[in-house]
Amino acid sequence: MNFSIDREILLENLNIISRGLPAKSPMPILTGIKMEVTTSDLYLTSSNTDISVETFISDSSLEITKPGKTVVPGRFFIDIIRKINSKKVNLCLLDDKILLIKADRGEYKLHIMDPLDYPNIDFVTLENPLELSSECLKMLIKQTSFATAQSEKKPILTGVHFSLNDTKLNVTATDSFRLSQTILEIDNYRPFNITIPNKSLDELSRAMDTYNDKVSLYFATNKLLVKFKNVLFQTRLLDGNYPDTSRIIPPAFPIVIKFNKNELLDAVERVSLLSPREKMSTNELSYSIIKLTVSEDRNIILSTTNASVGDAQEELVPLDVQMNAPITIGFSSRYLVEALRSFESSEISLNCSEGIRPFVIRGEKDPNLTQLILPVRMD
Amino acid sequence: MNFSIDREILLENLNIISRGLPAKSPMPILTGIKMEVTTSDLYLTSSNTDISVETFISDSSLEITKPGKTVVPGRFFIDIIRKINSKKVNLCLLDDKILLIKADRGEYKLHIMDPLDYPNIDFVTLENPLELSSECLKMLIKQTSFATAQSEKKPILTGVHFSLNDTKLNVTATDSFRLSQTILEIDNYRPFNITIPNKSLDELSRAMDTYNDKVSLYFATNKLLVKFKNVLFQTRLLDGNYPDTSRIIPPAFPIVIKFNKNELLDAVERVSLLSPREKMSTNELSYSIIKLTVSEDRNIILSTTNASVGDAQEELVPLDVQMNAPITIGFSSRYLVEALRSFESSEISLNCSEGIRPFVIRGEKDPNLTQLILPVRMD
Repeated sequence: MNFSIDREILLENLNIISRGLPAKSPMPILTGIKMEVTTSDLYLTSSNTDISVETFISDSSLEITKPGKTVVPGRFFIDIIRKINSKKVNLCLLDDKILLIKADRGEYKLHIMDPLDYPNIDFVTLENPLELSSECLKMLIKQTSFATAQSEKKPILTGVHFSLNDTKLNVTATDSFRLSQTILEIDNYRPFNITIPNKSLDELSRAMDTYNDKVSLYFATNKLLVKFKNVLFQTRLLDGNYPDTSRIIPPAFPIVIKFNKNELLDAVERVSLLSPREKMSTNELSYSIIKLTVSEDRNIILSTTNASVGDAQEELVPLDVQMNAPITIGFSSRYLVEALRSFESSEISLNCSEGIRPFVIRGEKDPNLTQLILPVRMD
Repeated sequence: MNFSIDREILLENLNIISRGLPAKSPMPILTGIKMEVTTSDLYLTSSNTDISVETFISDSSLEITKPGKTVVPGRFFIDIIRKINSKKVNLCLLDDKILLIKADRGEYKLHIMDPLDYPNIDFVTLENPLELSSECLKMLIKQTSFATAQSEKKPILTGVHFSLNDTKLNVTATDSFRLSQTILEIDNYRPFNITIPNKSLDELSRAMDTYNDKVSLYFATNKLLVKFKNVLFQTRLLDGNYPDTSRIIPPAFPIVIKFNKNELLDAVERVSLLSPREKMSTNELSYSIIKLTVSEDRNIILSTTNASVGDAQEELVPLDVQMNAPITIGFSSRYLVEALRSFESSEISLNCSEGIRPFVIRGEKDPNLTQLILPVRMD
């Protein structure tokens, strides 16, 4: 193997490949990047068993003297290509034992691994794609993935559920204390029903970071392949049935309060500075609990009490209030902050019921997005 | 106590006060900020026993309704003032038990501590200052403090030594593997000889971050007080004799090589990507060791060998070489990187002897700065 390539082109592809590269692995060969040069193209592959990424490069800067394949130590290779500041790099195999990287006056030699030891990665057949824009896919991920469960107690909840029925793609995440749901209209595609690990969606978003064009999704029994540009990004899917969340969102709310989103966010963040940190039963993280009170005379107060430090309250000025009864509800300030941040809208509404029934946040400019939060008991 | 003040003025002072505020303390009262309002001024004080900071505010925005004093929970108070976005804040003591902070529609109540429990801080008398510009003091700190010892084995080495003899202020730091020294001309000041804890200098630099004017230094037996603007910043000094470093710097060097600083820095950083991490005996940190070789024919190579990964070499192109013998020396790449970064100069020189005698880095535009590094044995 012997070829030269523009360093920036190589680095751009390595940044995408790094999304599938594990720092450590029970299979040491997977800490390497598989590199294969044909007479015309370069293929790079990484895999952490959950995620596999392949890019194929047929750039005009690619000058191939001798085809071949190898597996190079992934992190070291990426670090070197990132730090080099030459225009071109030359990569050459010496005695099938060492990869020599030449760039300007620098020479880097890496011990390679045997490409025959690299597992064969079975990418999904490229047939019948569902096509979306990358912006749309990134938005679906951003609006839902934060609400997935962190704990592995119910593994299915660590993923985001995508289900298509008729023309509605329903994207849902829940950790059983809150729920994010967004709906996208899709024409002419067969129904499907999959749960994608949150970690994979996070890496996919990063891989698509600077890409703004069409992406194609290919489905197989337990895998999803996303193709964009010269990249194949494949992830395993989560096994098991996703819980039916269709009846969790209440159909109507006796209380609807509209706020300027940023004013509400600021007030929540200030008040929660003083809120006590409480542990939720199924989760190692601690949450700060704050209280929302709407009184008979439509005074709206956000407050918290912390026995050891003091207490805080902010009077909120709503844009509009519709109500037929006063309420007091307590909830995790982090849940509300994360939910509010998922909206593009500058005006949002809190849709509440009494007691500990869930409340829902909606945004005037995000008609398809619903964020739901379960209050906690305030005693 | 009851007063109002412009929030930005208060926050600016709290940011300085925070440099002396411990996160935890065996004396819980010290996690508080002492606040005292006279009929005309506001005083804020913090102390972690090593460092004490006091600011006095007599801003035109200060409106005092009732003088008084208290100690407020430091971190909570700073966080609240930082997050509030009102123009003014009102601070009022309720029943000598609670501080009420009012800002726009927000009300924050903090349990206070008894100001009688706050230790009396004995600031050095404001007589006979040594005056410097803050830029100059910040530069002295930046050029030396990184070379202090991290380990507490020889406590005196965790500080930076300042000694004035005749008209030369000699500022030195060493961890016994490297040494930083810079000299400043001072007229008409009595000799002194002190060692300032590195941690204090770090906090002092941050406290002076946005300040660019005169600072006054006041010396006492075991304390140093730095006064700037409306701030008193006092630190304890380290006990003990600082080692005599005057004969460590070799008087002459058989080999002098000039480099473009940034080119050398880049090459060092690239080569050290592959260097093995070795533990130095007196330090918990691991260092990567690289090798510099100057051959008979004046070829200059920076290289490293890592048995488990591979090896790296870069040929360096010097601006000038004066030599009468070839050399090979090994040293910590981190030491060289940190030393190079302390120079303003874009051209620097490596001044070397054979074997494991120290080498020295100098910069054409930093005539008073010397960085010295002790090589390690390469076997």
